[in-house]
Amino acid sequence: MTDIYDVMAKITALDTDSIEQARARQAQLTKPAGSLGRLEEVAVQMAGITRSVTPIVQRRAVVVMAADHGVTAEGVSAYPKDVTPQMVLNFLAGGAAINALARQAQADVTVVDIGVAADLEHPQLLSRKVRRGTANMAREAAMSQAEVLQAITTGIEVMENLAAQGVDLVATGEMGIGNTTAASAITASLLNVPAEHVTGRGTGIDDQQLTHKVRIIEQAIAHNVPDVEQPLDVLAKLGGLEIAGLVGVILAAAAHRIPVIIDGFISSAAALVAVALAPAARDYLFAGHLSVERGHRLILEKLGLEPLLTLHLRLGEGTGAVLAMHIIEGALRTHSEMSTFAEAGVSDKEA
Amino acid sequence: MTDIYDVMAKITALDTDSIEQARARQAQLTKPAGSLGRLEEVAVQMAGITRSVTPIVQRRAVVVMAADHGVTAEGVSAYPKDVTPQMVLNFLAGGAAINALARQAQADVTVVDIGVAADLEHPQLLSRKVRRGTANMAREAAMSQAEVLQAITTGIEVMENLAAQGVDLVATGEMGIGNTTAASAITASLLNVPAEHVTGRGTGIDDQQLTHKVRIIEQAIAHNVPDVEQPLDVLAKLGGLEIAGLVGVILAAAAHRIPVIIDGFISSAAALVAVALAPAARDYLFAGHLSVERGHRLILEKLGLEPLLTLHLRLGEGTGAVLAMHIIEGALRTHSEMSTFAEAGVSDKEA
Repeated sequence: MTDIYDVMAKITALDTDSIEQARARQAQLTKPAGSLGRLEEVAVQMAGITRSVTPIVQRRAVVVMAADHGVTAEGVSAYPKDVTPQMVLNFLAGGAAINALARQAQADVTVVDIGVAADLEHPQLLSRKVRRGTANMAREAAMSQAEVLQAITTGIEVMENLAAQGVDLVATGEMGIGNTTAASAITASLLNVPAEHVTGRGTGIDDQQLTHKVRIIEQAIAHNVPDVEQPLDVLAKLGGLEIAGLVGVILAAAAHRIPVIIDGFISSAAALVAVALAPAARDYLFAGHLSVERGHRLILEKLGLEPLLTLHLRLGEGTGAVLAMHIIEGALRTHSEMSTFAEAGVSDKEA
Repeated sequence: MTDIYDVMAKITALDTDSIEQARARQAQLTKPAGSLGRLEEVAVQMAGITRSVTPIVQRRAVVVMAADHGVTAEGVSAYPKDVTPQMVLNFLAGGAAINALARQAQADVTVVDIGVAADLEHPQLLSRKVRRGTANMAREAAMSQAEVLQAITTGIEVMENLAAQGVDLVATGEMGIGNTTAASAITASLLNVPAEHVTGRGTGIDDQQLTHKVRIIEQAIAHNVPDVEQPLDVLAKLGGLEIAGLVGVILAAAAHRIPVIIDGFISSAAALVAVALAPAARDYLFAGHLSVERGHRLILEKLGLEPLLTLHLRLGEGTGAVLAMHIIEGALRTHSEMSTFAEAGVSDKEA
């Protein structure tokens, strides 16, 4: 079985030579220096990730990890938990937002049942159930240490299969009624901030339900007493199986020098855990967008990531990450396809 | 010859029936209400523009209007004015940023010489020179009333030809060394704010040059005394030929119920004039992005437009507008392609 510590050990720093050469190329392109803003930064980071001065992306994928959450028994979500398996079937039928956006971006959609609390079968579904939903973290640990390791390993294996198929740009996505509660609990613990600062309305709860949700998260943290110096302990006690799976996806992608676009709050909680485990993984990440969900901004600030898009999304599934693929492609196309001042016979800035 | 008042008279309000039906459709799609944020708003606005509940875009184009500015004689730009014709040739050779991004977005690039101060010939160039660059607005009116009308008419005719070819989504782009100076002067006049609040570094001038640029703009306004109640007077005295051309593009697109994505500061100054002339045109606009250039935010606030992207671009050419086409396509795809709760057998929110 895959050892997650072996994977983590393979994650190394970005390639500084490629970064410098990519920067030098940017300075010669027919535009005022810096005038393509974030696109220039993205191109340079991609060069450092891929060890190529003019990187290209050939095969895109989004991994959608689905799982249920025992904490829904506490009434923290606006939707019934039946929606998790229903939406998994919707993903497989191609009818969800992520499907429409993935078709647009020409990204493959890989749907993984890593812990849905219902029997699901479909030829395109990766059935990798670690358990049928987490336990109710308000009363006990969401999962055991063995289970959290199994879920991370599952994510690693899914990503390694995609890498073997030639995927060279991956987005993280998820589905799981109740998973903003888990993401908030993880974020409050790892950032050491009050739960109310990182708890939002998820799929659309009202003020009273929000107050209740915050109280449940506080209860889960007080009851489980996670060791904030041990990201795996936090993840096991407060996490979700899909979040742990995405930790594995992120670690494996970074180990293979594959850029990862993280989506909204849930995916970013996974990134927070992954970077706590392997700090070098951070440079392989792009923040696809800034979610409406409270707490997301705090995670991105902690990770030092600036979102590529701000479209007031709060859906998850990988939607914002897949939309951001177009920005990354735009960065790579301008970087690779533009003429230099010399090639085009254009005068550079007057000294 | 096209009468711009006839075109303006054809611009009518968005279709409220299509807007309401599009909103009703959004409420049934398999996602929490509002969770696609700006994408939902874009889809609904597109429905109102096109009079279709599920609009589609079949042919995209960006119009790049190029012209020179007499005010460059005052030393307001970091680049020599030879760069305007050089960049036009770069656009025609496919080597500029706009070409790379237009290829990505599958948008046609229409390059118009509406007033470059050099002889330019190329089979793909639309040669529609109104005059060889504007006069130096620091000393005299940039152009006459007849010239500004001719430039707007040129933009109308370019857009009407594109509409006849089936273009149903258009982006505005421009090239013209010195054109941030013109755009700042127009913006200061029409918004009635001090020049320094809306004057930025353009292609990259230093602090001392910026102070000089502000002074030149103040001089141009003081010398020409534009009538701020008469947008065409402001445009003639302080404008650029490419800005006037884009006013025509915007008016004609709105008259044909074709959505227009405006790019950065220069394009937005054109939009400010177009909406001052025909307020109903405003609802046909999308703000592609928020430029680094000072003054852009003030224009967007005045127009009540929220940018789709914030990528710290400051290049122009239509780059940010063409990148935003992907966001609009994402909005339309999710709106049209997603299953409803009933179709997918997904439970809606608990009441």
